[in-house]
Amino acid sequence: MKIVEMRIVPVAIADPPLRSAFGLHAPYALRTIVQLKTDDGLTGLGETFGGSIPLGDLEAARPLVLGQDPYRLTRLEEAIVGDPVAARNADRPWEGRLTVPAQTFAAIEVACYDIIGKATGRPVADLLGGRFRDQVPFCAYLFYKHAGIGGSDGLAHASSAARERDDYLAREALSPEGIVRQAQDFVRLFGFKSIKLKGGVLEPAQEAATIHALREAFGTDIPLRLDPNGFWSVKTSVNVGHELAGALEYLEDPTSGKVAMAEVARQVPMPLATNMCTTTWADIPETVARGSIQILLTDLHLWGGLAATVRLAHLCRVFGWGVSMHSNSHLGISLMAMAHVAAAIPNLTYACDTHYPWQAEEVIAGGKRQFTDGALRIDDTPGLGVELDDAALEQLHAQYLAAGLSKRDDVAEMQKIQPGWSPVYW
Amino acid sequence: MKIVEMRIVPVAIADPPLRSAFGLHAPYALRTIVQLKTDDGLTGLGETFGGSIPLGDLEAARPLVLGQDPYRLTRLEEAIVGDPVAARNADRPWEGRLTVPAQTFAAIEVACYDIIGKATGRPVADLLGGRFRDQVPFCAYLFYKHAGIGGSDGLAHASSAARERDDYLAREALSPEGIVRQAQDFVRLFGFKSIKLKGGVLEPAQEAATIHALREAFGTDIPLRLDPNGFWSVKTSVNVGHELAGALEYLEDPTSGKVAMAEVARQVPMPLATNMCTTTWADIPETVARGSIQILLTDLHLWGGLAATVRLAHLCRVFGWGVSMHSNSHLGISLMAMAHVAAAIPNLTYACDTHYPWQAEEVIAGGKRQFTDGALRIDDTPGLGVELDDAALEQLHAQYLAAGLSKRDDVAEMQKIQPGWSPVYW
Ligand SMILES: [Mg+2]
Ligand SMILES: [Mg+2]
Repeated sequence: MKIVEMRIVPVAIADPPLRSAFGLHAPYALRTIVQLKTDDGLTGLGETFGGSIPLGDLEAARPLVLGQDPYRLTRLEEAIVGDPVAARNADRPWEGRLTVPAQTFAAIEVACYDIIGKATGRPVADLLGGRFRDQVPFCAYLFYKHAGIGGSDGLAHASSAARERDDYLAREALSPEGIVRQAQDFVRLFGFKSIKLKGGVLEPAQEAATIHALREAFGTDIPLRLDPNGFWSVKTSVNVGHELAGALEYLEDPTSGKVAMAEVARQVPMPLATNMCTTTWADIPETVARGSIQILLTDLHLWGGLAATVRLAHLCRVFGWGVSMHSNSHLGISLMAMAHVAAAIPNLTYACDTHYPWQAEEVIAGGKRQFTDGALRIDDTPGLGVELDDAALEQLHAQYLAAGLSKRDDVAEMQKIQPGWSPVYW
Repeated sequence: MKIVEMRIVPVAIADPPLRSAFGLHAPYALRTIVQLKTDDGLTGLGETFGGSIPLGDLEAARPLVLGQDPYRLTRLEEAIVGDPVAARNADRPWEGRLTVPAQTFAAIEVACYDIIGKATGRPVADLLGGRFRDQVPFCAYLFYKHAGIGGSDGLAHASSAARERDDYLAREALSPEGIVRQAQDFVRLFGFKSIKLKGGVLEPAQEAATIHALREAFGTDIPLRLDPNGFWSVKTSVNVGHELAGALEYLEDPTSGKVAMAEVARQVPMPLATNMCTTTWADIPETVARGSIQILLTDLHLWGGLAATVRLAHLCRVFGWGVSMHSNSHLGISLMAMAHVAAAIPNLTYACDTHYPWQAEEVIAGGKRQFTDGALRIDDTPGLGVELDDAALEQLHAQYLAAGLSKRDDVAEMQKIQPGWSPVYW
């Protein structure tokens, strides 16, 4: 079996004005869709980060992919990535890591597993060691946000988004009450059984007050997480950590870097999680040596694919770390890739993050996947279990061209509404 | 697809009187053959350690295996092993670890991958991330030995062994000259391009002299290894290490335990390898923290199977360790399982160990596999690429029953020819 065609389509999807320490989400989030076809007529799908850098990286990989056997992934990885451990760029800022070759390989590897699944009649999870669970739990991912649904009313998202216009998607949420209402919507609509709040936006005391408000609204049945994206000092992290003792299942990236994280880890009463201080294989030894974290958020897009994520989760088990899962704005291909690999990881100790409820648009046939009781079901459908909606793909690609965005820049977006704004280290 | 039959057959194979620090190999080595059959008529093979303990462990696992889907290995592993990291018994002596549930699972997992390979028409290596190499290099594994071929002349091995009677298989090798001649046979007959000597048998100075004699005979083209199985003190290890500076690609388990290994590692000029101080997932964190080793000998039988070995090799890459492969006396099923997983590991930095040339008997159809230029070729044959020779299996099972051995006991065997013998710590 050989890969004979590789299609790479950049798309833009409406994204509401969500806030994080980095600034404000633009009206569109960018993604890239990868479609591989084999000489025996099978098609595999992958999805990764968007914009010109991933697009260029994938284009550059095309000659390495065409003609290859989708089963022989170690060779493809060697050709694209080389040594995945030596390919470190841990010293570069987080967004700069979007160019790591492992991420290029990941999008292709997912499409190859989709093909193998179709060739064997097996769901992808069964090609990664086998489904450990049939139901993959996800987490409500709450954001402080401005009013509005993102995108532009004339474009594709509008009709589906309009239905939810009076709902969490359009509503402002910049106070504890706003976040509690958003959480209530998420729990009611999707059945999520745990809640994450993106922090690093308001003053730390206000974010702590929001967590207390959520605790009050939901009691202790629903575990809470808070993620200020590394924008707190050690002192602030320790203070808020004590303030929230007993209220969080974990505190995610309160501060930046392995040294500071280790210092906070020693002083706060809850475990620390990360998708920032440890994002490449090269980060692992120092993370282990310093004791910087207790929980790792895996991400198949960042770490080099599905098989890499299984290996990473096993490594977490070896070092006694819990396993959660990171998410960026994404469509249904990524959602199902995440769900399949999560289904194959025995030690998935926490429900997976997902931005998925924030995207009203979809590129897969049948429209958006639905969560039931906060989970996605992995059934016997071969591969990832998704097919492209060609018309939707064209529409979202046109939207990419019309949007004129080539990279994510949350700072610039924030400055449009607040001139001179820059990220605040609390 | 469901597993509907599980056949577990203990066998004994003729084994020459090889020496190690533990004593003397008995006339027979024990192995256990596992055969799984599915409801759609596929058969998968596995092979593991022999004797009553592995046999009992496999029998106990039977109800957990029957009715299961061979693709859904994470669930099977959970049922048999539980948490593979928590299942530690690192404090028990090496042989005691033969009862680790991961080893039971490994034999079953290999048979499941053989089935999946046949179901998909793919070699097992392609189910483990894909063949990185088509030729898997093995290493000449030399032993100090007494004269004789093991077994009993009346039994199955004799006819094939007889052909080699004047050769390495029968000849005594207890001197540097004897070992050099053995090495010359191995290199001429099999084309091996690296050489390992099992040490811990003679006085350390004599073993160092043997290494020097090998170096003189083969020059620097053929890398050398020495493995005294942890029976040297730190002082002896450091002395011999300096004596052999420049002569060894690695020194394997010169001494015992993570603390002593780390001490030796700091003082000798060559890297240290192990298949003894780090043999379970639970051993990894302390090994990392102390810096006890630079090279790990993986072993699919010990570490929980093929997928576990891929994960382990990746973990080695993350921590900058080289990867080699351990071997016990074994037949062709284990040989091919080792070859397939070695083919899928990009960072296989050293040729694999194998006892295979020491076993004249075989249980697979077509007789013993042949090394070409010291390597085995992985081709497109589905699964492991081996089938059982039913008559040979029956014969070797009869030999097991006739031999009356239920476990390996090299000390008792040594005492038969040297009453009162006990292992010597140099
Ligand atoms: Mg995060
Ligand atoms: Mg050894």
